[in-house]
Amino acid sequence: MFKVNDDYLKLQGSYLFSNIAKKVAAFTEANPDAPIIRLGIGDVTQPLAPAIIDSLHSAVDEMAAAETFHGYAPDLGYEFLRSAMAENDYKARGCDIKADEIFISDGAKCDSGNIQEIFSRDNKIAVCDPVYPVYVDTNVMAGRTGTYDAKKGIWSDVIYMPCTAENNFSPELPTSTPDLIYLCFPNNPTGSTITKDELQKWVDYANKVGAVIIYDAAYEAYISETDVPHTIYECDGARTCAIELRSFSKNAGFTGVRLGATVIPKDLKSGDVMLHTLWARRHGTKYNGAPYIVQRAGEAVYSEAGKAQLKAQVAYYMENAKIIYEGLRDAGYSVSGGVNAPYIWLKTPVTMTSWEFFDYLLEKANVVGTPGSGFGPSGEGYFRLTAFGSHENTVAAIGRIKAL
Amino acid sequence: MFKVNDDYLKLQGSYLFSNIAKKVAAFTEANPDAPIIRLGIGDVTQPLAPAIIDSLHSAVDEMAAAETFHGYAPDLGYEFLRSAMAENDYKARGCDIKADEIFISDGAKCDSGNIQEIFSRDNKIAVCDPVYPVYVDTNVMAGRTGTYDAKKGIWSDVIYMPCTAENNFSPELPTSTPDLIYLCFPNNPTGSTITKDELQKWVDYANKVGAVIIYDAAYEAYISETDVPHTIYECDGARTCAIELRSFSKNAGFTGVRLGATVIPKDLKSGDVMLHTLWARRHGTKYNGAPYIVQRAGEAVYSEAGKAQLKAQVAYYMENAKIIYEGLRDAGYSVSGGVNAPYIWLKTPVTMTSWEFFDYLLEKANVVGTPGSGFGPSGEGYFRLTAFGSHENTVAAIGRIKAL
Repeated sequence: MFKVNDDYLKLQGSYLFSNIAKKVAAFTEANPDAPIIRLGIGDVTQPLAPAIIDSLHSAVDEMAAAETFHGYAPDLGYEFLRSAMAENDYKARGCDIKADEIFISDGAKCDSGNIQEIFSRDNKIAVCDPVYPVYVDTNVMAGRTGTYDAKKGIWSDVIYMPCTAENNFSPELPTSTPDLIYLCFPNNPTGSTITKDELQKWVDYANKVGAVIIYDAAYEAYISETDVPHTIYECDGARTCAIELRSFSKNAGFTGVRLGATVIPKDLKSGDVMLHTLWARRHGTKYNGAPYIVQRAGEAVYSEAGKAQLKAQVAYYMENAKIIYEGLRDAGYSVSGGVNAPYIWLKTPVTMTSWEFFDYLLEKANVVGTPGSGFGPSGEGYFRLTAFGSHENTVAAIGRIKAL
Repeated sequence: MFKVNDDYLKLQGSYLFSNIAKKVAAFTEANPDAPIIRLGIGDVTQPLAPAIIDSLHSAVDEMAAAETFHGYAPDLGYEFLRSAMAENDYKARGCDIKADEIFISDGAKCDSGNIQEIFSRDNKIAVCDPVYPVYVDTNVMAGRTGTYDAKKGIWSDVIYMPCTAENNFSPELPTSTPDLIYLCFPNNPTGSTITKDELQKWVDYANKVGAVIIYDAAYEAYISETDVPHTIYECDGARTCAIELRSFSKNAGFTGVRLGATVIPKDLKSGDVMLHTLWARRHGTKYNGAPYIVQRAGEAVYSEAGKAQLKAQVAYYMENAKIIYEGLRDAGYSVSGGVNAPYIWLKTPVTMTSWEFFDYLLEKANVVGTPGSGFGPSGEGYFRLTAFGSHENTVAAIGRIKAL
């Protein structure tokens, strides 16, 4: 008689954003005329840039003729895209990452969920608290997190690194030693960042204790301050301890196009075993490449026209971030983030939990945000708004919140 | 100090098709002028059908305007595609599968590799031998297969169901009881099929012993005989024991476009737990949907124009299958498959192993095929050729083999 993976049954409720979608759907059904504005899930709203659209059309035409048709992609992704990334994301920043250390995928969510698979089940993970829920949830599903304390909202075998107003949303080095450290900067959900000097301390620490840093750089395009690193490979020694996750979702609006990449330097080893080899084996065995047309779209992100158009797109969203930040501040909220990130993190009124504030905003202002407690226990009492709406909606949403 | 997943280290060599690619690359480097014809990997060569190209262009245009832009897709996939599948692949065949029992993905390889994750690690798998290597390899990576006997080429905890000329390439019910049974019909690599009556016996067996059948229907578009089922849900009782994997790679040429689906009926349960719920949780947590433009391309597969164009495309490949089958038979080989499948399975000359025949064909005829032993121990002494080349290449390749 077959049995299911018991570790799946340990998961608490459903995935955060699925929960939110269900709540909003229920509210909309009960209030069909409510003018809902969604600043919850980090989904973009601006159309793809013209350079990307051109590239997609051109690639589609290639698929229409036998001479230029493309079937299965190479295991690691097309060389044209890996080279563009190596050149623009790494070499241009003085980082030593080769094209064949970059694995193209269909997005950073998949990669951040799957990467734990190449590690031993008894490895111990450390996560910022609050943080993107995929890191912890996928380790729960792999049986790596122990038992859940429903009262505290924590797993027995996870090292939580609180990021709250008290430490300026910047994690401190853990007191017990982890094997895998998930870091995401600019941070989702707090919008906080880390300076290059601070990140260097993490790299030195990981090399010292023999830990691997899984560095999620999905929001690097939103960095505006010069001392904030765009990649962990700006730090000395990162090649022997860090895996970096890259996304095209937020810098190029690919949430519905699906493209990402994982960087594993060949110097990152456990004894003689390169993690690069293990991830290559996973790619070869369980994955069949991102679509050719999508990889061509990714290449266009690095064209001169693409760069200019996407710079304007990021600026558009960051103008929203400013509107949200200043509007909430003027309304008396404690706010952070929004300077190097498309996320604004606010303290909920003292009388409300994160989910109570979610319901309150949805009912009274018809604005959807994300409850901070969904990102971890230290997120309780906080709330995330995203800058990915349209200008009009953003201005309207903040106006409604101010009017409450 | 972090540790790697030891189960990955148990894998034998690299993924079969990665191995072949490396061998061919080495040969090509040494013989740059050799006119290689690839009938090895099951990759298609015909361009996308016009209806699909039109749909892609149209969807790309939608992504260019904010009003019609699509960000994150719904967890299970777009309703328009799931409904088209429910209608055409199931309702039209009298099968009771609802749209919300279909999960859209980026391909059957990913799904067939990931599906084992929702089952307990101590579940026992049964596989046809020979078979598509992803089934066994991904269970090795999950620690489910025990130890490897290099001499026999078998894993201690896997139930092998030999499919050879002796039993007409049709597996017999296993003598020890499995928890998960992988079946693929039309079969990759042998090209053999199973009648509806025979498949019913497997469904009855699975329901009796409490096993789940993972039914890979990737090649159903190639079925030409009327008593061969296109889906396992044509059998009574399949809703309580079967998961079906669907692909767009071979029926619509999507190997480089990436689209697939997994069907999990809500009646398939372990106690109170629906497998549907577990797979939904995996989708929600570790996956972010197939691209909108690709899901629209999938919808076009079911349009009247799409159906007609793809019927012609399948007929084109099946003409190749006939050329290969008859050519090899005339050359004195024992051949099977090729009637309901795009694969032709041949017995290698008695003096040659599968890999020796691979080298022989590559060197003497510059034709790339796939060694049967790569699909399992009972594949030794066999060899797979695919019908996915162009007519010209197929005729030329068979001409060269006949001339040897």
